[in-house]
Amino acid sequence: MSELRHDPLSKRWVIIATERSRRPEDFLLPPSPYPEPKFCPFCPGSEDKTPPEITAIRPHGSPPNGPGWESRVFPNKYPALTIEGEIDRRGVGMYDRMRGIGAHEVIVESPKHDEHLADMDPAHLERVLALCQDRLRDLARDARFKYSLLFKNHGVAAGAALAHPHLQIISTPVTPREISVELESARQHYHVKERCIYCDLLRDEIEARERVVMLDEHFVVLAPYASRFPFETMVIPRRHRHSFAEEPRPVLAALARCLQDLLGRLKSVLRDPPYNFVFHTSPNTDTVVRRRNYWDTLPFDFHWHIEILPRLTRVAGFEWGTGFYINPTSPEEAAAFLREAIL
Amino acid sequence: MSELRHDPLSKRWVIIATERSRRPEDFLLPPSPYPEPKFCPFCPGSEDKTPPEITAIRPHGSPPNGPGWESRVFPNKYPALTIEGEIDRRGVGMYDRMRGIGAHEVIVESPKHDEHLADMDPAHLERVLALCQDRLRDLARDARFKYSLLFKNHGVAAGAALAHPHLQIISTPVTPREISVELESARQHYHVKERCIYCDLLRDEIEARERVVMLDEHFVVLAPYASRFPFETMVIPRRHRHSFAEEPRPVLAALARCLQDLLGRLKSVLRDPPYNFVFHTSPNTDTVVRRRNYWDTLPFDFHWHIEILPRLTRVAGFEWGTGFYINPTSPEEAAAFLREAIL
Repeated sequence: MSELRHDPLSKRWVIIATERSRRPEDFLLPPSPYPEPKFCPFCPGSEDKTPPEITAIRPHGSPPNGPGWESRVFPNKYPALTIEGEIDRRGVGMYDRMRGIGAHEVIVESPKHDEHLADMDPAHLERVLALCQDRLRDLARDARFKYSLLFKNHGVAAGAALAHPHLQIISTPVTPREISVELESARQHYHVKERCIYCDLLRDEIEARERVVMLDEHFVVLAPYASRFPFETMVIPRRHRHSFAEEPRPVLAALARCLQDLLGRLKSVLRDPPYNFVFHTSPNTDTVVRRRNYWDTLPFDFHWHIEILPRLTRVAGFEWGTGFYINPTSPEEAAAFLREAIL
Repeated sequence: MSELRHDPLSKRWVIIATERSRRPEDFLLPPSPYPEPKFCPFCPGSEDKTPPEITAIRPHGSPPNGPGWESRVFPNKYPALTIEGEIDRRGVGMYDRMRGIGAHEVIVESPKHDEHLADMDPAHLERVLALCQDRLRDLARDARFKYSLLFKNHGVAAGAALAHPHLQIISTPVTPREISVELESARQHYHVKERCIYCDLLRDEIEARERVVMLDEHFVVLAPYASRFPFETMVIPRRHRHSFAEEPRPVLAALARCLQDLLGRLKSVLRDPPYNFVFHTSPNTDTVVRRRNYWDTLPFDFHWHIEILPRLTRVAGFEWGTGFYINPTSPEEAAAFLREAIL
């Protein structure tokens, strides 16, 4: 059982994943690219090499845990957090801890071993996004989980352990620090101005244009004013919504098109860079409290969005020591390169 | 001129270093180890390849900018921040910016191209630490700078651009976010309890022993309770002091021994891993305000320390998306391995 520990100085939570424990020797291997696998556990025919599936898209109604799927969800075989048990929050001297309770799921997007998200059939990607929504809504029903992070690691340098494209969801019993900081910023802004900070930001960015990569009826893609990394971008829905999981289907279709356009541009300009993307959406507790207001026009204070982080530079002592980043490419330049990409 | 930009959502400052601007092509090179250099700009005889030196240790009184030095300080040739000019703080729509004013210095520790800190003559390392103190005190006199970070990148994976061992100092016109969070934690604790949070933590850790790597009269080395990374450690002076720059010489001698012991253990257990270390010390403004109380026994609320971060795991989407870390090695295990290292 892993453990969640809180650092009273940095106010950070850490998962000490003892299940995954490694001895010093394990760190001595050079960080290698994907070993040539004899088999890929995420490819069709290897369904028995993963934990039993939670759900799947099976267009021809094939039975679970065998081939015939279009996308497939199962628990991570080496989970950072485990689903069974009580959280058991307690203090240990001046520290705080809880048991490593949570969910850690894998969403294999496609049976094809090397299908890039940018090149997938858009209708297929839309169905994958709907599948993610299903999982997020289901996990939100578990009152132990405060937050569910939907994310993707693409490429070795971005931390992907397997080459076969997949998304992951990690549900945690606390709201992570970065999300709390954003929520707090949005709340302070709303408290003072009675406006959403993201809506304000969108209005300004759309007017200025210099950091906008792409915009359509539903979404804006922009290079954030204070980008940490070269070619960092953000996808924001133009209509104020606090939760990705509650977006209606036409918005998912638009999101699939938008994501594919953006990932295609990154692939073209930077020749398929390693990247991470992460969905920032309302914590589960907020979702529950606010759901009753969902269809009325009250402005909620959070506004969901996606951060896309190409992994082109190494993070060094200055960044780790301060949380202050040095970015050698201005977001205005990055946006221009991405706008002008040949697709 | 680079620019400092503030992100109103994450509350993070970012340096957009346009001097260092790179086009997309520059990111396409595979991240390679140190190229075999025809010459090393940090080796004796190449003094004209660096900006003119700021100061140096020259045991035989040799003239500046030539050989004969034991350690040498000069401005970074490709600085993230530049020393000349007004800060020019201003708002840009809903954002905040200032000019990229600051200092960025390089301290070459030794004339030897491949001397590891762990293997250096301890008296030499003590003189290097005193040289760093001189630079920090000098930079603190510049009222434009709020914070000076002393740090080291060792190895390609830790972001070192040159193999010849060196330290760096970056002085910034704002207090970086991670430092602010620690200061705030220390202040809250002191406000409620009238005790230093680091002193409390030291007392508990020394009593429990399980996370202590080494301790002597002056310093404790421990694996933090909520370590983000495998084999992360912290060096903390046992006597409460808010500023590294003001430590007396006998403490520097003890620090040199302690750092060498720790780096030797990391080198032995993990076979010379890439690592970053960063000094966390009081911001400059605090130093000025409190200096008059330095020698009395009043407890100040910050307690300087060093964070040493071996770079053994890749940081992926979950970590970037949440500020939440997954650490596969418990600090208790890491401390045991380091205690038992064969030196």
